[in-house]
Amino acid sequence: MKVKPDYRRPVDIAHGHIDMNHGAGGRASAQLIEDIFLKAFDNEFLRQGNDGATLPVAPELLRGGKLVMSTDAHVVSPIFFPGGDLGCLAVNGTINDVAMLGARPLYLSASFILEEGYPLRDLQRIANSMGSASRNAQVPIVTGDTKVVERGKGDGVFITTAGIGVVAAGVTIGGDQARVGDSVLLSGSIGEHGVAVYSRRESLDFETEIQSDTAPLHTLVADLLNALPAGSLRVLRDPTRGGLATTLNEIARQSKVGMMLDENCIPIQPQVESACELLGLDPLYIANEGKMVVICAHEVRDLALAALRAHPLGRLACEIGEVREDPNYFVQMKTKLGGRRVVDWLSGEQLPRIC
Amino acid sequence: MKVKPDYRRPVDIAHGHIDMNHGAGGRASAQLIEDIFLKAFDNEFLRQGNDGATLPVAPELLRGGKLVMSTDAHVVSPIFFPGGDLGCLAVNGTINDVAMLGARPLYLSASFILEEGYPLRDLQRIANSMGSASRNAQVPIVTGDTKVVERGKGDGVFITTAGIGVVAAGVTIGGDQARVGDSVLLSGSIGEHGVAVYSRRESLDFETEIQSDTAPLHTLVADLLNALPAGSLRVLRDPTRGGLATTLNEIARQSKVGMMLDENCIPIQPQVESACELLGLDPLYIANEGKMVVICAHEVRDLALAALRAHPLGRLACEIGEVREDPNYFVQMKTKLGGRRVVDWLSGEQLPRIC
Repeated sequence: MKVKPDYRRPVDIAHGHIDMNHGAGGRASAQLIEDIFLKAFDNEFLRQGNDGATLPVAPELLRGGKLVMSTDAHVVSPIFFPGGDLGCLAVNGTINDVAMLGARPLYLSASFILEEGYPLRDLQRIANSMGSASRNAQVPIVTGDTKVVERGKGDGVFITTAGIGVVAAGVTIGGDQARVGDSVLLSGSIGEHGVAVYSRRESLDFETEIQSDTAPLHTLVADLLNALPAGSLRVLRDPTRGGLATTLNEIARQSKVGMMLDENCIPIQPQVESACELLGLDPLYIANEGKMVVICAHEVRDLALAALRAHPLGRLACEIGEVREDPNYFVQMKTKLGGRRVVDWLSGEQLPRIC
Repeated sequence: MKVKPDYRRPVDIAHGHIDMNHGAGGRASAQLIEDIFLKAFDNEFLRQGNDGATLPVAPELLRGGKLVMSTDAHVVSPIFFPGGDLGCLAVNGTINDVAMLGARPLYLSASFILEEGYPLRDLQRIANSMGSASRNAQVPIVTGDTKVVERGKGDGVFITTAGIGVVAAGVTIGGDQARVGDSVLLSGSIGEHGVAVYSRRESLDFETEIQSDTAPLHTLVADLLNALPAGSLRVLRDPTRGGLATTLNEIARQSKVGMMLDENCIPIQPQVESACELLGLDPLYIANEGKMVVICAHEVRDLALAALRAHPLGRLACEIGEVREDPNYFVQMKTKLGGRRVVDWLSGEQLPRIC
């Protein structure tokens, strides 16, 4: 018996579709992984080829510090939208969740739930976008999994990423750290991601196409940590689902404080503002994927703003309010018209499947 | 204005269903997480309440060692089956993938993709099963995420878990470590999980109900590592999707070796054997969720078997074959009838959505 060990017919990516065999764990699964995912994510850890990856952690990184772990399922619809797609969103989103604890993201995992019939060409495009986002952020995808569900039991592709990172000794950033008197900063303008996805979903044509702001924020966080004295940075959080309003309410509740915002100071791109008016959406509740809220001691706010503005992803950073004492944990806002209103949590659903 | 800060109506778990609001990131999402997931998984890390968890790692655990990371999406259908459910499967499956690298699992993440309309009562049952599996294994679920998709775009519940662990210095277990002359051991009988799920899916009634073998194998792995001299343990792998046959083929390919198995030595429960005959299934290709293949140096196989058999999950452990030189990387088997056959990879799909 003379055969070339391991010969196999290449996968026809241009014309092929996901079938149930791709999820069965046999030869078809192995080929799919090799021809699409390994090629797109290529790195030494993934190439270990086991059901998990063995990963070095430089001892100086962990000395006195802690591990950070985060995960997100991504079900955005449509999968491709102006400024990004499900793939880069899944990579950037989890990098950001790790970074928001003041940690340096080290490694990512990626799990795919594929619907029978999904075009391999599109899957490859998503995988390539993930690979490129991961290389750009220098955070490799080290392990993964692929499952297939029958037609009508999924929706093309869902991707769940998990991330691990390390946070240095003495860094205690978290939603419960805001203190009365702290400054509330925002790294840039709000609403772009949600409006970009929504406009593509509804096939709306605006004069200027609004692009998602999806971006990895970990280097911005690192710059901020470097610029500020230890302990003066209290909270970092990316206002994704539920938007800025919900994120600030979450923080207020965790920290048992109130906040007073100034609507005039919250940056919104004019085309996002017009789109929101047209569509009846409130930009305060719209998801962002490349912005962060920074709460820091009042006396370091200028240092913080300077550090943010020196980074390409923080050029429009500004102070949007302050932390106040409030037994009701209300987030309030001075409006553009000079009034004052309570900015509540998102209740109900403004935009489904935005991330 | 005098309100109880943070008052909310409790979620009606007995009669409620998932709606799109539960995935919007606002108040309904927060309530779902608190009333179902936090209660079921309760631990100090999850209670941090951030979009990720900050986790201590004892420095002595990592001294000279490495991190291990693994992930799996779980789409088993039906969600509840004899001997387990989607929830405990998702916990045990990822614990096992981490353990198969010789690592001690430390922490898990869990992401949920929920279909609109899914009963909250069933979701709570799944979450409680995860919590109980996680406590039983002493591996906490420290962070998570919840997304909701429209009715008809999912299938009840999908769960993706990721796990991290630490592997001690000097342990180099992996699919590429098998050497010619090594012994191939199996920790127990095969086929129970796949047959249990399949029989429930097809509403088949066997005289004796076959139960899934879902179980966390990390303490069995720890016992084995303790019992064997350093370097003598080469490969650990749990034969899940694709079954024992596919797992051994994967290892043969990674290690560039062949194998010779003895069919007489592969333990199968009589009721699984009868069910497979009846259904036309080959137990070698059926998924297991609480078994592992152990490849070790020939001279330590008795030590290894003794360590396995001393653990409740390894009582039926036995030697099933040996590693041979083979330029084609074939897995072959001496059959019960005295013949010899090539045991190929699973090609095509025997049982869809088995895990």
